[in-house]
Amino acid sequence: MDYFGYVAAFLTTICWIPQVIHTYRTRELAGISLVMYIILVSGLICWVIYGALMNALPILIANTITVILAASILALKIRSVIHAKRLKA
Amino acid sequence: MDYFGYVAAFLTTICWIPQVIHTYRTRELAGISLVMYIILVSGLICWVIYGALMNALPILIANTITVILAASILALKIRSVIHAKRLKA
Repeated sequence: MDYFGYVAAFLTTICWIPQVIHTYRTRELAGISLVMYIILVSGLICWVIYGALMNALPILIANTITVILAASILALKIRSVIHAKRLKA
Repeated sequence: MDYFGYVAAFLTTICWIPQVIHTYRTRELAGISLVMYIILVSGLICWVIYGALMNALPILIANTITVILAASILALKIRSVIHAKRLKA
């Protein structure tokens, strides 16, 4: 049974790598929801804290990797939003 | 300590709602990675199976909601990829 847990954690962690590559390569950010990534990164930070407090290494490691990947997309999205606002100003 | 776990699960589940709304409203799919969503939905299905096998209701409920939301984005992305291929043909 644990097998599904490990596969699930592995897949829902590595899935962010193709999105990071896709976003950095295409710079297509219009389809990315800023609100989603703000809530997601906040949630992932909570998972990292929870994993640390519970001494649950799999949760700590998986979510630390994911928060770095998701935060890199969020950073690009914030930059594009700021850039778009400057153009309008 | 459990507090962080519940907040984390809540945030990483509801974060998909703004992305679904954003995607359905803007139909901007170029920035969405098809590979990411295929891996993500597969991983979320594994979490649902894991939650069912372990009788872990929070994991089962959170990931069932998330897989429905993520799969709806994946469906739109697949449709847009098929549509783009037909235009090229």
